[in-house]
Amino acid sequence: MPSAPEVLISEVGPRDGLQSVRRTMATRHKLAWIDALFDAGLREIEVGSFVPVARLAQMADVAQVVRHALTLPGLTVVALVPNLQGARGAFDAGVHKLTVPLSASEAHSRANVRRSRAAMVDEIARIAAWRDAHAAHVRIEAALSTAFGCTVQGAVQPDDVVRLAQNAVAAGADECGLSDTTGMANPAQVRRLFVQLRAAIGERIAGAHMHNTRGLGLANCLAAYDVGVRTFDASLGGLGGCPYAPGASGNVVTEDLVYMFEAMGVTTGVDLPRLIAARRPLLAGLPGEPLYGMTPLAMASADAQARAADV
Amino acid sequence: MPSAPEVLISEVGPRDGLQSVRRTMATRHKLAWIDALFDAGLREIEVGSFVPVARLAQMADVAQVVRHALTLPGLTVVALVPNLQGARGAFDAGVHKLTVPLSASEAHSRANVRRSRAAMVDEIARIAAWRDAHAAHVRIEAALSTAFGCTVQGAVQPDDVVRLAQNAVAAGADECGLSDTTGMANPAQVRRLFVQLRAAIGERIAGAHMHNTRGLGLANCLAAYDVGVRTFDASLGGLGGCPYAPGASGNVVTEDLVYMFEAMGVTTGVDLPRLIAARRPLLAGLPGEPLYGMTPLAMASADAQARAADV
Repeated sequence: MPSAPEVLISEVGPRDGLQSVRRTMATRHKLAWIDALFDAGLREIEVGSFVPVARLAQMADVAQVVRHALTLPGLTVVALVPNLQGARGAFDAGVHKLTVPLSASEAHSRANVRRSRAAMVDEIARIAAWRDAHAAHVRIEAALSTAFGCTVQGAVQPDDVVRLAQNAVAAGADECGLSDTTGMANPAQVRRLFVQLRAAIGERIAGAHMHNTRGLGLANCLAAYDVGVRTFDASLGGLGGCPYAPGASGNVVTEDLVYMFEAMGVTTGVDLPRLIAARRPLLAGLPGEPLYGMTPLAMASADAQARAADV
Repeated sequence: MPSAPEVLISEVGPRDGLQSVRRTMATRHKLAWIDALFDAGLREIEVGSFVPVARLAQMADVAQVVRHALTLPGLTVVALVPNLQGARGAFDAGVHKLTVPLSASEAHSRANVRRSRAAMVDEIARIAAWRDAHAAHVRIEAALSTAFGCTVQGAVQPDDVVRLAQNAVAAGADECGLSDTTGMANPAQVRRLFVQLRAAIGERIAGAHMHNTRGLGLANCLAAYDVGVRTFDASLGGLGGCPYAPGASGNVVTEDLVYMFEAMGVTTGVDLPRLIAARRPLLAGLPGEPLYGMTPLAMASADAQARAADV
């Protein structure tokens, strides 16, 4: 048995990426893409969200996608749910883990899930109670969005973030992650906030979900790693953003993140050439979709030169 | 008097950027661009290189560019020189500081300056002797290229880098910087190598010159900052690369680097909107040239939304 990877890369492209793509990706392409991500070694994938079809047609097939993902051995299948209704659907489909978004910014909370922060904590309590009664093995993560700043509200106070995380844990969340929804985080802030959060909720800290809006995605992941964070969300090709946070764009690119950690000697369990190959089924389902990331370009360039040298 | 910035951003676009652009930028555009960079608050600019015109026509006007840059009060005017002949030209033009490239990789040294590493150390000794005799106030930096890996040779041993730096200092270099010419550096390696270099040459460490080839430019700058480096090379819009290191591309983007440090509360002395405005004269001289960087896009998007909200 190889030893466990030192960091967990949690792929969020099929959820966070697709939610900001206008075209609907056909189910068969989603399944092939998830298979390719699994083949590359990813062992946690957020495969979709359980939201009303009227609100996000892209996710109409989420139950089917979950059922397929459950056939991949050793994969932790995650889905986002904004409320108990969505959570019931996710429980029924058989997910291993739920992500419940919880905005640190009151203004963003109302824009994103049409509820106050306090109402969302209450919703987490309802979801946790249902989980305890019907699906005790399912984990619940509160994903604290706009934790580093909000384009609607502006600055977000660290104490607000930590208090909200404590409330989420008290309501029954197993873990809390921090999301830089708006791409406003900087490395010094990332270190401070994760240290403060650890002092408050200890090992219930989940991962860092960083965006590359201002180019700081990897630097912020490095900063989080430096203070002990070991789970990182990322999206293949940097697909995605947040349609409800104006100006936000670009998840951290999985390929670049995996390259960074592996180059540092920090194991991810992910095979980089196979990961880059997973772009093919993604693009088969979304022809011409713009993808980001420097590592795939650098590797393609190196490959082309090696082939030229062979001639 | 405002206090001195905590980090020095050394702009290398007019040298490192332009050297890999095929079109020749007209002198008047170079001068306007350098003026705009100065107006943004940059106080060290590598304005060109003193190389044979037959080899790099882009730099035919370098003496004129230096003379203009010298009129900007408080600006440290830097030029790259590959040998004593170039250094004499730079001394004559009146530069404050010379950068002499010194490849840590023997293979890259021969490709880049057509000389062995040992021959380049000898050249530094000749340049330093000339400086001591004729222009004692001019500083000499040995820029250790391919310090983190070489696309031609492969791995580069840290001990080789440090020994070469010690030799350069012994030959008369005032300071030595480390360049990730090929974009192969990772943050763990950056920390290790700068720590090792500091143990060997102490305060004679110059700056970090990072590339963004695999997306790690800012993360590597952060890593260098963490171990005490306070000077960082960058290029406006990420212009540039190294034509002699296959697959290398993209200097760290000055705009993103300044954003990162300022967001962290680390002062740079640079005004970000004015820095972004310096793209205009650059593009006036090189219409349609592709520029990189996420911060300018994010700020343009935020501005557009603010204007829309005003309506």
